[in-house]
Amino acid sequence: MRILKLTKDTTNDILNSLLKRSPNNYGSYESSVNEIVQNVKENGDKAILEYTEKFDGVAMKANDLLVTQSEIEEAYKKVDSKLIDVIRKAMVNIKSYHEKQRQYSWFDSQDNGIILGQKVTPLGVVGVYVPGGKAVYPSSVLMNVLPAKVAGVDKIVMTTPPGKDGKVNPSTLVAAHEAGVDEIYKTGGAQAIAALAFGTATIPKTDKIVGPGNIFVALAKKAVFGYVSIDSIAGPSEILVLADETANARFVAADLLSQAEHDELASAILITTSERLANEVSAEVEKFANELSRKEIINKSLDNYGYILVAQTLEQAIDTANEIASEHLEIVMDNPFEIMTKIKNAGAIFLGPYSSEPLGDYFAGPNHVLPTNGTAKFFSPLSVDDFIKKSSIISYSKEALEPIYKDIVQFAECEQLTAHANSIKVRFEDNE
Amino acid sequence: MRILKLTKDTTNDILNSLLKRSPNNYGSYESSVNEIVQNVKENGDKAILEYTEKFDGVAMKANDLLVTQSEIEEAYKKVDSKLIDVIRKAMVNIKSYHEKQRQYSWFDSQDNGIILGQKVTPLGVVGVYVPGGKAVYPSSVLMNVLPAKVAGVDKIVMTTPPGKDGKVNPSTLVAAHEAGVDEIYKTGGAQAIAALAFGTATIPKTDKIVGPGNIFVALAKKAVFGYVSIDSIAGPSEILVLADETANARFVAADLLSQAEHDELASAILITTSERLANEVSAEVEKFANELSRKEIINKSLDNYGYILVAQTLEQAIDTANEIASEHLEIVMDNPFEIMTKIKNAGAIFLGPYSSEPLGDYFAGPNHVLPTNGTAKFFSPLSVDDFIKKSSIISYSKEALEPIYKDIVQFAECEQLTAHANSIKVRFEDNE
Repeated sequence: MRILKLTKDTTNDILNSLLKRSPNNYGSYESSVNEIVQNVKENGDKAILEYTEKFDGVAMKANDLLVTQSEIEEAYKKVDSKLIDVIRKAMVNIKSYHEKQRQYSWFDSQDNGIILGQKVTPLGVVGVYVPGGKAVYPSSVLMNVLPAKVAGVDKIVMTTPPGKDGKVNPSTLVAAHEAGVDEIYKTGGAQAIAALAFGTATIPKTDKIVGPGNIFVALAKKAVFGYVSIDSIAGPSEILVLADETANARFVAADLLSQAEHDELASAILITTSERLANEVSAEVEKFANELSRKEIINKSLDNYGYILVAQTLEQAIDTANEIASEHLEIVMDNPFEIMTKIKNAGAIFLGPYSSEPLGDYFAGPNHVLPTNGTAKFFSPLSVDDFIKKSSIISYSKEALEPIYKDIVQFAECEQLTAHANSIKVRFEDNE
Repeated sequence: MRILKLTKDTTNDILNSLLKRSPNNYGSYESSVNEIVQNVKENGDKAILEYTEKFDGVAMKANDLLVTQSEIEEAYKKVDSKLIDVIRKAMVNIKSYHEKQRQYSWFDSQDNGIILGQKVTPLGVVGVYVPGGKAVYPSSVLMNVLPAKVAGVDKIVMTTPPGKDGKVNPSTLVAAHEAGVDEIYKTGGAQAIAALAFGTATIPKTDKIVGPGNIFVALAKKAVFGYVSIDSIAGPSEILVLADETANARFVAADLLSQAEHDELASAILITTSERLANEVSAEVEKFANELSRKEIINKSLDNYGYILVAQTLEQAIDTANEIASEHLEIVMDNPFEIMTKIKNAGAIFLGPYSSEPLGDYFAGPNHVLPTNGTAKFFSPLSVDDFIKKSSIISYSKEALEPIYKDIVQFAECEQLTAHANSIKVRFEDNE
């Protein structure tokens, strides 16, 4: 891995390079995605079936879209029972963590008859998109579905593209069934997102769409935002490791590679205050990279977006980590909790030598759907928050309104909204 | 006001009619907005100044964009001191309510060395857009700025279009200064949104943009979503009143009109189980409408989107209210709190005869920036939540990782992510 001295210029160059991977920059596909979305909005199932034949290479009827109970049973027979066991173990941790995120309705009352509050309501229907293709991630199914379950969503609908045989990957089906998905439809791509946003005769309209996908899926989600809610648009995966001379170079190298293997756009960055560690990690990376099955992807992503940066000071290292706002941040330093207090921007923060990033991907409990591409500056991990919404509660007695009613009238009249003023005044006509 | 019998067909017709007002349907302006956004992204201040001359009719230099301390002092001299007093009174309530929305970092630990948690961090820089034009709403400034202040945002930047004299409306300046805005820039429209999203030499890049605006502002916010975060895209204002035979027809009529006066696209709907009340409210609306200063707007919005709907049953009335998912919902019934428990979708819920909607616009404390156009099914009122973000915290000891490390390896290998598996295995090489 290349080793660079960390300077303001290096940081800017890297930031610019990383931002080029943003799903916001793929404008050239926008018009074809918009055409697909519009077609599904207007023609429903007919459009879905045409696109499924065109893009997934399988001719289906509307009746075939819903995954049947017997297909789910068939899937259980095909999946290694060890995977089912590990899915169930992971689910316990994921549910337990997300339970702690629950938010509750509250109110505050004053003895003159004022009640103010905030009512929390789960979303009605949620759509979860699961990509198809060769890479199948049952963990992603759990991470997208379980927060919605914990939130108490009425119905969870999943869509995923079928293979050429018209079947869905069995691990996906098993994970969905274990997590408690209510309905699974065999359709993928921008057309699936449009179906979840507008509904078709077969696929229900949802209130919010979550889940990862390729650029067509990401652009379709952006196109339907406003008609429905969406989660943040996912970019390629990232890891940033902040390490000092106490770090184990072999652990750090292995963790960098765990993200580099995702795809050629993935980014793996080490920022260290130790030049010795920089050299050791670089050497360990070379050793591992040649042993691992996905070495082509790893080498490309490291060439494109992999860096070992040697910082002059700890402060500079931390500032740069906050600038980059990485999806995953490992702090492998002598005092990781102290450093954590200085971290403003990161999706998930892993502290200490045994908190390896894949622990968070599968097992620890926190969500692995995290803000990418610098969006940790303003977005949060997927959570129960994504599947609830709030309503304000306002209840005033006559006794409470009377002493302030003239203030409200004054304010409304300053804004030249006389009907607003009138609606307050009418309640005290007898006083006038 | 027209009185209709509430049926499934009526509801569908009304929903379709209301949804036509959605900012999502103004696609024809999209290309001109995208051009403005792109120009500001590439040419910064130069583009801002050109558009300000073109659209606001005032030639300025980059140095003139920032509102100066002396302009703020001048504004205080021009604003009625009674308005300043009422702004200060309202601020106490707004801050007090939003303080209750604060969320806190938490962690959970187990005695084998596991720490899981969620760190809450305020956003760094927030941009608040304030529309110009004839209608000036200092209340809107308070409602957009104060939640960000309560959240602890580092810097709040406001933009608002200048008049032809190059000045900003004094009430806007006073409200902004009272609320604690750090910098105010004189620029409006899509160009201001682009400046806040990408930054210019003069105007800082922000992490999130909030605030109402016309269709150009709404489309620009949608265009920059992903580069920055935005609040939900505001549509025209709405009120839905659920009332039974105990309601005061004069109060209900006045409240319907308070929203109808906003603009010709505003919607005011009464759903009642009482035919007598329906007739009385209709008569009161006619009386008031002719007395009020904004009667042209009121009559147009009532003709377009005003309805009195007579429900056959209470259940039907409530179901329809949930379908419409109104921005403002008043429950003027014998047992408003019981009915409230059945409300799933509404921006703000006002209970009882003295909780008039304008009380919430100005004074009670809850935010008046609310989801419109059916989006209360999945969006929430603007709140402190909008100005924070979360990071997951994961810390495992060796002792905690060891008993489960083979499960994680198994899961990773099932997903064919061998570098993920490797990053766990490397920590227990001595065991292998």
